[in-house]
Amino acid sequence: MKRFTPLCFVLALSAPLFLSAQDEKIDLNAIQKIRQEEAQRSKVMDIAFHLTDVNGPRLTVSPGFTKAANYAIQQLKSWGLTDATLDPWGEFGKGWELQRSYVAMSAPYYKSVIALPKAWCSGTNGLQNAEVIVVSAKDSASLDVYRGKLAGKIIIMDRSEDYKQSFSADATRYDADALQKMAEAKPGRPGPPDSAAMRARREQFAQLRIQATLPNIIKTIAKAEGAVAILSTNSRSHDGTVFVQGGGGFKASDPENFLDLAMAYEDYMSMLRLAKSGTPVKMEVDVKTKFTTNDTKGYNVIAEIKGSDKNLKDEVVMLGGHLDSWHGGTGATDNASGCAIMMEAVRLIQATGVKPKRTIRIALWSGEEEGLFGSRGYVKKTFGDPATMQLLPAHTKFSSYFNVDNGTGKIRGVYLQGNENVKNIFASWLQPFKDSGASTITVNNTGGTDHLSFDAVGLPGFQFIQDPIEYNTRTHHSNMDTYDHLIENDLKNSAAIVAAFVYNAAMRDEKLPRKELPKVGGNQRGF
Amino acid sequence: MKRFTPLCFVLALSAPLFLSAQDEKIDLNAIQKIRQEEAQRSKVMDIAFHLTDVNGPRLTVSPGFTKAANYAIQQLKSWGLTDATLDPWGEFGKGWELQRSYVAMSAPYYKSVIALPKAWCSGTNGLQNAEVIVVSAKDSASLDVYRGKLAGKIIIMDRSEDYKQSFSADATRYDADALQKMAEAKPGRPGPPDSAAMRARREQFAQLRIQATLPNIIKTIAKAEGAVAILSTNSRSHDGTVFVQGGGGFKASDPENFLDLAMAYEDYMSMLRLAKSGTPVKMEVDVKTKFTTNDTKGYNVIAEIKGSDKNLKDEVVMLGGHLDSWHGGTGATDNASGCAIMMEAVRLIQATGVKPKRTIRIALWSGEEEGLFGSRGYVKKTFGDPATMQLLPAHTKFSSYFNVDNGTGKIRGVYLQGNENVKNIFASWLQPFKDSGASTITVNNTGGTDHLSFDAVGLPGFQFIQDPIEYNTRTHHSNMDTYDHLIENDLKNSAAIVAAFVYNAAMRDEKLPRKELPKVGGNQRGF
Repeated sequence: MKRFTPLCFVLALSAPLFLSAQDEKIDLNAIQKIRQEEAQRSKVMDIAFHLTDVNGPRLTVSPGFTKAANYAIQQLKSWGLTDATLDPWGEFGKGWELQRSYVAMSAPYYKSVIALPKAWCSGTNGLQNAEVIVVSAKDSASLDVYRGKLAGKIIIMDRSEDYKQSFSADATRYDADALQKMAEAKPGRPGPPDSAAMRARREQFAQLRIQATLPNIIKTIAKAEGAVAILSTNSRSHDGTVFVQGGGGFKASDPENFLDLAMAYEDYMSMLRLAKSGTPVKMEVDVKTKFTTNDTKGYNVIAEIKGSDKNLKDEVVMLGGHLDSWHGGTGATDNASGCAIMMEAVRLIQATGVKPKRTIRIALWSGEEEGLFGSRGYVKKTFGDPATMQLLPAHTKFSSYFNVDNGTGKIRGVYLQGNENVKNIFASWLQPFKDSGASTITVNNTGGTDHLSFDAVGLPGFQFIQDPIEYNTRTHHSNMDTYDHLIENDLKNSAAIVAAFVYNAAMRDEKLPRKELPKVGGNQRGF
Repeated sequence: MKRFTPLCFVLALSAPLFLSAQDEKIDLNAIQKIRQEEAQRSKVMDIAFHLTDVNGPRLTVSPGFTKAANYAIQQLKSWGLTDATLDPWGEFGKGWELQRSYVAMSAPYYKSVIALPKAWCSGTNGLQNAEVIVVSAKDSASLDVYRGKLAGKIIIMDRSEDYKQSFSADATRYDADALQKMAEAKPGRPGPPDSAAMRARREQFAQLRIQATLPNIIKTIAKAEGAVAILSTNSRSHDGTVFVQGGGGFKASDPENFLDLAMAYEDYMSMLRLAKSGTPVKMEVDVKTKFTTNDTKGYNVIAEIKGSDKNLKDEVVMLGGHLDSWHGGTGATDNASGCAIMMEAVRLIQATGVKPKRTIRIALWSGEEEGLFGSRGYVKKTFGDPATMQLLPAHTKFSSYFNVDNGTGKIRGVYLQGNENVKNIFASWLQPFKDSGASTITVNNTGGTDHLSFDAVGLPGFQFIQDPIEYNTRTHHSNMDTYDHLIENDLKNSAAIVAAFVYNAAMRDEKLPRKELPKVGGNQRGF
């Protein structure tokens, strides 16, 4: 659906058919075909359009996720993949959908505000016009003064003013210096300074820990007393971009969560200042949410391109990304982009007619946002249990797993995930893509996503280095994680690189070398 | 309401009391007092809080404007200004208020969207659930195919995808190079490359011209056929920031305008792509607006500090900015900031006990956003008619007018507005503020705001050079023009500089030198 811009990275036809770099043989002819197919007949934006605009948000177990998963299965089948299926990985919990969300300030004057209910929250039981009450507390004891005062109220927690204008760009690409620093990183050193997913996940976990304290106590009191809602914000949620995740438990046995509205910083602070100055502030809120409990199991999408070599077809190369998303936007950069890249990569392999020797298996995970549940469940039932390190037969037949989950930014290289044995292999695999800016190899780990589930049982799992673009500033878990924030050429580039990596792994004489097996009890690294 | 940060630009007490630079005498003692008062007892953020959060939007003639004007009058009186009044300048038109705005996509799935009715549009007469229809037309003739098909529909105009991620910062300050270029500008050359208001106003007028063609034709048909609304967007309205102005005529005799919803680019394009792909798209819209016609005259706020010198007190120095705003936010940087600076400047003069010889008159204009109506009306009835150049007696008694209307950014210097006679005077007036980064003088004009009304009758009217910050990217005429986008230290700096300029003009032996009087018919420059 985006304007077509010809890719300028198609190899000249005079390129040698085989390149031997650092003892790695590469089928340059196949890679050339892959790049040509991507440049001339890309479907990556069409896939992204279906996963985002057409489908809507894809919260795990919710109708949006199921719709997207079924679309993916139908597409993968249409490209000739086999055994395309919704593969259950275990118990997840309730589905949840937003059916109405109207939030406005109604006094001291009418003002449209930007706010979204957090996932798995209950609604308001119709339109409410409620007074805003400021709750100011440093510890749980000081919350006592609010007991008995919250019925029919909307709670705004007092907070300090911490917004600063953005004097740096929202969208960035790695410059030569940043890539050089990654390349020079030593094993065991901390991750790269701006590993997007890792930082975001740490923030998320830190936030969850805080949520376990004051706001959760007040929410419990508020729910018991019949308050209407609580308002939340943070200084990242500025300019209309609102970051919004889950509002509490989602297990089948969990009660519905008290309505927690993630709100634009400007709207929140304006109401807070007014209320603190003694001006009565009222809000109109009409939120309707729907919980679905018809099937509380989690499913991944799995499909295969069967290997062509009789000796190697039982060995598996995997590629994947999580299909589930948060609900503020349509999960375009987190992670329709990764799924579109992976789906396009297998399409490229099929469309070019190359015949990979090993079996290539694509996985689109669910439950990633809540804790990598889909990939962990799949790895546990397929390859082994990271808790006991009891391994299954498929563990020995596994080559490698490649993951994309850092937004729309084009691939600039790959994280070795501490596995220096693959450094020279990846260096030679990246060589044909040097012209597209993908040449950096770092021994660093990167965390926060599904390759960790493989790493946890000692299987080679890798994530690519991607340009950050707006991942940390605008799109990651926000209402702006939408199709228009995707960059077509970056996705095309990435699809060709992933297809080449997967194909190379499927054609290589040996499976990819591994790190030492993790010790029992020591394999939760990076989670 | 913002954190207090001590200003670091207070002059050392050992500074000479009088500075003679280029033959200009400056009362450094008074300037020192002004800066100390601002550093230690600033009210500028409190004024801004009242004009924005407490008051809400200030659309001309609307209740919000009147409330803000009355607040300003009460404040000015409390600081000892005299003759503080709502001063009528002529016929404006209808007031308008938003009383409800609920907009969402309801099919193919439910999605909260960011949208705001344009000013002076009618509502929906309750909640509507309507189908979206794509209108694709290159000329008025090709609109004919849509006739008879618009009843009950929401119209989305086809448009191309033109969003690009922001690889440059939203907020900027002028660097030394940019200031140097302004300083080196020659008379008659085009304005500075990034004169915010000028460019924005040109865009606004260009947009108005376009509005006179296709969308206006379709709106006429839509209204006649009973359509629900039309959607609008532009690629600046991204990340949740939505730029929204007027939806058509506002004169007392004008009919209500067909509902035009300014919408976030991401939401608009998602619905457009869906509808164009053949997916039925529906929306829920419930908009209630209120027109007020109790008084359709426009008013400015005027107040004075009477001059202390019996020979000079009939001469006038003016300072001002427009108080009216658009309605998407609360008009914080356009132009509560300018009004807060001007109000604070007269408060500083009063609080420090300095006794200006000439009369200082503050004006907070209305109708600026629709065409500088308030200042033009005031100048015409007070000083002379720019159309005929018939001048009134007060014209000879006028020294100068100083305006602020380019957002929150701190003052970096002043535009001479083509009047090179004041260059050395302003150079010496800026000298005490060099430490705050305000030292640039450019002969350039800057357009788009109320000093032009003075310039048009040959009176010295000036606008300051201000750091752009987010004026063009985020706040100017958007839903993000809110209190949190103000920068406290910048406003404080600016208030002190304006107070000093106005005080210097009131104390100078002579009125400020003028340019040649404009010729009849040649005085619409810069509008």
